[in-house]
Amino acid sequence: MPRAKKPKAKKAKKTETKKVKITKKAIKKAVKKVKEPEIKEKFVYFFGGGKAQGGEKLRDLLGGKGAGLAEMTNIGIPVPPGFTISTQMCNLFYDRDMNLPQILMQEVRENLKKVEKLMGAKFGDLKNPLLLSVRSGAKFSMPGMMDTILNLGLNEETTEGLIQKTGNERFAYDSYRRFIQMFGSVVLGIDKNEFEKIIEKKKEHHRIKMDTSLMVSDLKDIISKFKKKIKSKTGEEFPQDPFLQLLMSIEAVFKSWNNPRAIHYRKLNQIPSDLGTAVNLQAMVFGNMGDDCLTGVGFTRNPSNGENLLFGEYLVNAQGEDVVAGIRTPKPLEKLKKERSEIYKKLLSLTKKLEKHYQDIQDFEFTVQQGKLFMLQTRRGKRTAHAAVKAAVDMVKEKLISKEEAIRRIEPAQLDQLLHPVIDPDAKLEVIARGLAASPGAASGKIVFSAEEAVKLAESGEDVIMVRKETNPDDISGMAVARGILTSRGGMTSHAAVVARGMGIPCVVGCEEIKVNEERKVFTVKGYILREKESISVNGTTGEVILGTAPTIKPALTGEFGEFMEWTDQIRKLGVRTNADVPKDAEQAIKFGAEGIGLCRTEHMFFAKDRLPLVREMILAKTREEREQALNKLLPFQKSDFKGLFEVMKGFPVTIRTLDPPLHEFLPKKEELLVEITELRMKNEEPEKLKEKEELLARVEELSEFNPMLGHRGCRLGIVYPEITEMQVKAIFEAACELAKKKKVVVPEVMIPLVGTLEEFVNQKEIVVRVAEETIKKYKVKLKYLVGTMIEIPRASLTADEIATEAEFFSFGTNDMTQMVYGYSRDDAGKFIRYYIEHGILSQDPFVSIDQKGVGQIVAMGVKKGKDSRKDLKVGICGEHGGDPESIIFCHKIGLDYVSCSPYRVPIARLAAAKAVVGTEDYTTA
Amino acid sequence: MPRAKKPKAKKAKKTETKKVKITKKAIKKAVKKVKEPEIKEKFVYFFGGGKAQGGEKLRDLLGGKGAGLAEMTNIGIPVPPGFTISTQMCNLFYDRDMNLPQILMQEVRENLKKVEKLMGAKFGDLKNPLLLSVRSGAKFSMPGMMDTILNLGLNEETTEGLIQKTGNERFAYDSYRRFIQMFGSVVLGIDKNEFEKIIEKKKEHHRIKMDTSLMVSDLKDIISKFKKKIKSKTGEEFPQDPFLQLLMSIEAVFKSWNNPRAIHYRKLNQIPSDLGTAVNLQAMVFGNMGDDCLTGVGFTRNPSNGENLLFGEYLVNAQGEDVVAGIRTPKPLEKLKKERSEIYKKLLSLTKKLEKHYQDIQDFEFTVQQGKLFMLQTRRGKRTAHAAVKAAVDMVKEKLISKEEAIRRIEPAQLDQLLHPVIDPDAKLEVIARGLAASPGAASGKIVFSAEEAVKLAESGEDVIMVRKETNPDDISGMAVARGILTSRGGMTSHAAVVARGMGIPCVVGCEEIKVNEERKVFTVKGYILREKESISVNGTTGEVILGTAPTIKPALTGEFGEFMEWTDQIRKLGVRTNADVPKDAEQAIKFGAEGIGLCRTEHMFFAKDRLPLVREMILAKTREEREQALNKLLPFQKSDFKGLFEVMKGFPVTIRTLDPPLHEFLPKKEELLVEITELRMKNEEPEKLKEKEELLARVEELSEFNPMLGHRGCRLGIVYPEITEMQVKAIFEAACELAKKKKVVVPEVMIPLVGTLEEFVNQKEIVVRVAEETIKKYKVKLKYLVGTMIEIPRASLTADEIATEAEFFSFGTNDMTQMVYGYSRDDAGKFIRYYIEHGILSQDPFVSIDQKGVGQIVAMGVKKGKDSRKDLKVGICGEHGGDPESIIFCHKIGLDYVSCSPYRVPIARLAAAKAVVGTEDYTTA
Repeated sequence: MPRAKKPKAKKAKKTETKKVKITKKAIKKAVKKVKEPEIKEKFVYFFGGGKAQGGEKLRDLLGGKGAGLAEMTNIGIPVPPGFTISTQMCNLFYDRDMNLPQILMQEVRENLKKVEKLMGAKFGDLKNPLLLSVRSGAKFSMPGMMDTILNLGLNEETTEGLIQKTGNERFAYDSYRRFIQMFGSVVLGIDKNEFEKIIEKKKEHHRIKMDTSLMVSDLKDIISKFKKKIKSKTGEEFPQDPFLQLLMSIEAVFKSWNNPRAIHYRKLNQIPSDLGTAVNLQAMVFGNMGDDCLTGVGFTRNPSNGENLLFGEYLVNAQGEDVVAGIRTPKPLEKLKKERSEIYKKLLSLTKKLEKHYQDIQDFEFTVQQGKLFMLQTRRGKRTAHAAVKAAVDMVKEKLISKEEAIRRIEPAQLDQLLHPVIDPDAKLEVIARGLAASPGAASGKIVFSAEEAVKLAESGEDVIMVRKETNPDDISGMAVARGILTSRGGMTSHAAVVARGMGIPCVVGCEEIKVNEERKVFTVKGYILREKESISVNGTTGEVILGTAPTIKPALTGEFGEFMEWTDQIRKLGVRTNADVPKDAEQAIKFGAEGIGLCRTEHMFFAKDRLPLVREMILAKTREEREQALNKLLPFQKSDFKGLFEVMKGFPVTIRTLDPPLHEFLPKKEELLVEITELRMKNEEPEKLKEKEELLARVEELSEFNPMLGHRGCRLGIVYPEITEMQVKAIFEAACELAKKKKVVVPEVMIPLVGTLEEFVNQKEIVVRVAEETIKKYKVKLKYLVGTMIEIPRASLTADEIATEAEFFSFGTNDMTQMVYGYSRDDAGKFIRYYIEHGILSQDPFVSIDQKGVGQIVAMGVKKGKDSRKDLKVGICGEHGGDPESIIFCHKIGLDYVSCSPYRVPIARLAAAKAVVGTEDYTTA
Repeated sequence: MPRAKKPKAKKAKKTETKKVKITKKAIKKAVKKVKEPEIKEKFVYFFGGGKAQGGEKLRDLLGGKGAGLAEMTNIGIPVPPGFTISTQMCNLFYDRDMNLPQILMQEVRENLKKVEKLMGAKFGDLKNPLLLSVRSGAKFSMPGMMDTILNLGLNEETTEGLIQKTGNERFAYDSYRRFIQMFGSVVLGIDKNEFEKIIEKKKEHHRIKMDTSLMVSDLKDIISKFKKKIKSKTGEEFPQDPFLQLLMSIEAVFKSWNNPRAIHYRKLNQIPSDLGTAVNLQAMVFGNMGDDCLTGVGFTRNPSNGENLLFGEYLVNAQGEDVVAGIRTPKPLEKLKKERSEIYKKLLSLTKKLEKHYQDIQDFEFTVQQGKLFMLQTRRGKRTAHAAVKAAVDMVKEKLISKEEAIRRIEPAQLDQLLHPVIDPDAKLEVIARGLAASPGAASGKIVFSAEEAVKLAESGEDVIMVRKETNPDDISGMAVARGILTSRGGMTSHAAVVARGMGIPCVVGCEEIKVNEERKVFTVKGYILREKESISVNGTTGEVILGTAPTIKPALTGEFGEFMEWTDQIRKLGVRTNADVPKDAEQAIKFGAEGIGLCRTEHMFFAKDRLPLVREMILAKTREEREQALNKLLPFQKSDFKGLFEVMKGFPVTIRTLDPPLHEFLPKKEELLVEITELRMKNEEPEKLKEKEELLARVEELSEFNPMLGHRGCRLGIVYPEITEMQVKAIFEAACELAKKKKVVVPEVMIPLVGTLEEFVNQKEIVVRVAEETIKKYKVKLKYLVGTMIEIPRASLTADEIATEAEFFSFGTNDMTQMVYGYSRDDAGKFIRYYIEHGILSQDPFVSIDQKGVGQIVAMGVKKGKDSRKDLKVGICGEHGGDPESIIFCHKIGLDYVSCSPYRVPIARLAAAKAVVGTEDYTTA
């Protein structure tokens, strides 16, 4: 093994004395916290016999594992005794050119004596040898560092002693064989395969498959070959002296701190390189010494459903790894209750104690050695969302934790599992591709490649999955009836992703592996050829595309979930609204707890079959009069749409945005027209039709833009064509007034999109106020309404103080804001953003979670300038970030009044808003 | 005439006393300045006989005209005596419900007596009547207010007196006729046409055309009809009392302050409505009383070329208006020198005095009445750029003004006239359309619709004007050989506009009136049909498109121009660099005084005929190896390009930007391919070619983006394809090192475009530094270089403190910054930006002059954050704004180190940078 590089060796040497001084101070300070008597210079911390030096609060010195063992010991959990060499020694080790000081080995010997005493065995003893495990343990769990060494202390002689002690020759030799193998690879740095090859050869020789079928003689032969291999590889004998084994293992742990893999991991995770690792030495206990021995694993509560019952498995006369290895079938813990009730009782009481202490579900390991129960490990138990919510609610009722703590420990993203069907985790799946997990949930159905086909097939009662290169507003009708959506292009905020999340339809986007040919109605991936009407499944939670129909589970929304969500409402300060364009979505959102509509996109109403021709008529109009005629025909549709929304929202505010997208989105595509025209020209049969198409193309070309995202859209449309805004405002207020006449409460908020200057806003506000007042007067009703604006253009944020003199509310459109602050088109940037994330240039997709440093800075500036200028300014957010937990917490911090998100993210937003109040740190760093 | 609305009448009444007090104070203060004895309450200010109460410093009280008359009088210019009623009286008039106080008329009478004394005539006298002119005069020149009334004081009796006095009956009646006409329309509010009709009728009757042909009897008849008209329209007789005429005229002037037109003008120009107007009453003098009378106009220096010689014309026995009316041919002033040398001498001395006093070229009017010379008016003389520069330089040499003042008074935009050919102002032109004046200068030539045709025709020696819907990088070869460019789409920073300005080629863009059909090689406008090879002219200074070949003048760059530019260099703090991609442009810029290249766009080199195939090969490469092979072929081209630039720049710094545009710009257009493929498919004859085209289309589609401006471009290319950056950096440093080997000074500055995050910059900097160091080592030379970045993404400005930790210079790309801060695509926004400006939503095109409030705010933030983080950070600007005078002054204010602009704007930038130091205010408000 090459010598690890010493960090800053020269400098460190010079200041060694000084450094040690600082170190002592740090130790004293840490030790004081746990109220132990003053310790002069201490590197080794004992645990065992119900008492430990240190605990969780000495995590810096003891590392995570050492602190945990000490903590368990201190609260009276029977843990095999042992001791921890502090992380401080690791730094000293590097400062001393990788030499351990004498004083350390003295301390180790003293502590070893205590272990020997407690275990009634002696390290290196020929008759009753104490065996040790050695484990690394830094402050943060860190892959890349040294693996465990078990059975340390065995040699030719002590193995004989172990046989005498246990009467089990095979156990003893197998333990010795394992020890040499681990020591050889981990401490001596010999390739693991070298040892495996020897075992394989032996098994081949006997034509056996399992290690367990090896006889004692085989094991002895293997041991001998292992030792020869070590001699040949290192030039030295395998060390027989247990203390030498011990010393070498400690050094190996410290050296592993500077493994390339460990260094790389620290860099990636920004873990300081001077934290160091601790070394944990602990007495071995065995569950396989006979029938009075057993070993098992478990959870303090059911990790699937949260039920408050001990849950786990065990095996009699077995080693820990056997339980999970699947060679023997382990028994459920209920069996233990019947078969060994005293052990079960003890286990139950210990695990309850652990749960109470750690105030959370524990995932534990235990071993019974010759009738004596030892807890080997405990850690936070991983659980499903269902279990997490149930357990948290139960624990509040058990007064184990507070409501705040319950909120702190549920991750908002987990709730997705409770809101969508999921693929049966036990099902065997043929995953054929992976894309971006754009809208959670799983769905299966028959492949279609067009909106028409989707509608046709869905009407005949089939489940369909819509597959496209990308979607556009023309596809809405097909998307609405699809069970799932799959696209080969686009990012997390592409049209498909946004619409699908809005509709709560599972969706995978940007699945670039698949090659979609929409004309030929086929897509290919890795040799699979999938045609129209063949079955696939998409998992919008993972991004997987699965061949055939995957079995799904629809998780029940239990009563605890509702209760939990009410708590979030009690605590949160942020309001939560929804983005909804149609009554169906609004209704769903209200069920999920939305308190209003934060964004109704009027243009989504324009794509319906019965309206699109009218919209096109309006766009193609050559005069203002023609345009007004077309708009008059659209008015009744818009009015009835708004009426529906107002009715569903029952007095909650409804923010309606005036027309936003560029007009050419409503026209046929230029490319399609070009092909049609070329065909017609070459056929030369239908001159009339050719002329008509050419005229249409001319208008499409006139309206087409190089960068439509930065083109003639948003309020720019309403300014150049004021009659469009007039029609929309008229529709809003006629709808509102008709309901107001029936004594219904209606709170319309008209929102002007894409405002960049005060003048733009004033222009549109004048129209809104004029038409609104006229309509209210006509209907003779009283109606309060607000006129505000989207803040989505950087300039609007920069001049928010000006704009707030006229605008009554702001709603930050952080999708567009992110596009413009980064200069990323969300329809195009998918490809390089993925590259950026993979190469560490971006830590996350800024369309998924708000970029607090840049976009967030300008949003915060806008909030401050706006509120400074108008005290009662209402400020919200209605971009996709409104449903992202991290972004919601940021919105809380910068003083927003509400967030608005798609209906299926409303519960997530409610939870995130509550977490913004109670904090998230305690739980995530634990 | 309807009564004008009284501004804030009620409030004003209540506080009247107080208001007058404040007024007195203000008057005292103002009067103190001109060192006159204390005046208690004063509304009328006298001028005449070499002394006036007040002068230019009492502009607030006397208005512009009154202050000027007082000033002239005080410096000893013989001005017909008179007096000014102060603006304060105007406010008092409105405060008193539009009644003049008695005290005013007393003061008027007193002052009138002084005038009578000086003129030796008496107001209303039957034998020797004094006549007056009445003129309005606010602080700021303001159209919409009352016109002049001449000959006030005439009535049936005094007209007879005038005949006696002058012996000229026709003169007297004509004067009376004019007075009634003016008084009737201006004071009594009768439509002017009513009077004109009467005169017309009379002329028809006599079948004569000119007013001058009317006889005395005709005039008498007309006067009689005028008076009847007045009686019938107002119900009252035309006032015969000269004092009533006077009173009514004064009131009419005050009332005209609140004319709708005047109110509108004040609103537009943000002139406070409480400034009020003054009234100027002045003795009439006549140049048409006989042969000892004359009248003339002139300039103190030649307004065309600046020559220091009296320049103007005069007529003997004539009225002022006759000189400009063109009925009699006036004589040049040189004639006066011979014919009336004593008058000429006096005139010369007076005008020199005026010029010396006002320190600028004066445009004056004078009249000699019976041998006595009166100056009637003097004002700043309008002049050509040529004259402006020559006169300014001369005046500095004459010690009339300082260098700073010379700089202050030349408008940078004027210099354009000195740098480009202009259309002969005397030529008769047939203007057929108007677009945006995108690149100054005029050019004529034969129409071409494609780059190929342009090259072909130009090679055969023809001048060509390139006409396109819009241009793109494919057109560069054609644009380079064109004399002028005309497009029907695009704004001031469209591709055509930017490239044309860069090349100094006259260009008109966004000329939407013309319908261009590039396929059929024809464009139409207002019934004109213009085909390939027909002649047109474009005037890039005015935006005009002219039929046929317009005659042009190439102004000479005189020695004074060079001298003047040197002064700007002595004064300015900002450096001035140029945007240049090829040695030819760089050379031109150096001639114009550039101190380095601020932006070299490497991609412009990629469009050359011999390189484009290689660029396409690189883009279409399927593997990194293939791509590197193509790049290796490009390397020698790039290297020789850079070498050329470095050599021309002779040790000035050269900022080279790595590849910026999205790759699909280098590929054929999707639309064209689609048509080709459809045709090939339908013909079904060339399956090989079809396949090839289909493959190309597939790649084009793969690379095509919805919003390329926000897509995969800039450093995003160099990050995903590091081999591109590597090749470019290698080319830069091999070129630099080869020159350094020959002891030439080379200062390369590598600039990374479109950086939005520190990580992006670090990624590219690593490549630059690595390849640079390798190359420098290989060549064994010493070479200093910088690595910096464009700041053009809003996020880069917001996080400039971070980026400056690594970047050694910033160059603000305010084109892209404006696009993103406003959300305007400069290729698309032209249409609605024009609408915005016409409708007052934008005050100017933010792509032409930097939007200081929004874009400027974020730029200033970036400068501050950057310099706070790195003290020696060099900061410049290289967007189109770098050549806009207002923007340059802003750049100076926010602490930039240099600006960079296209070669033809370098002199303009030098001047603007100097003006940023010396200020511009004094001159523009004068």
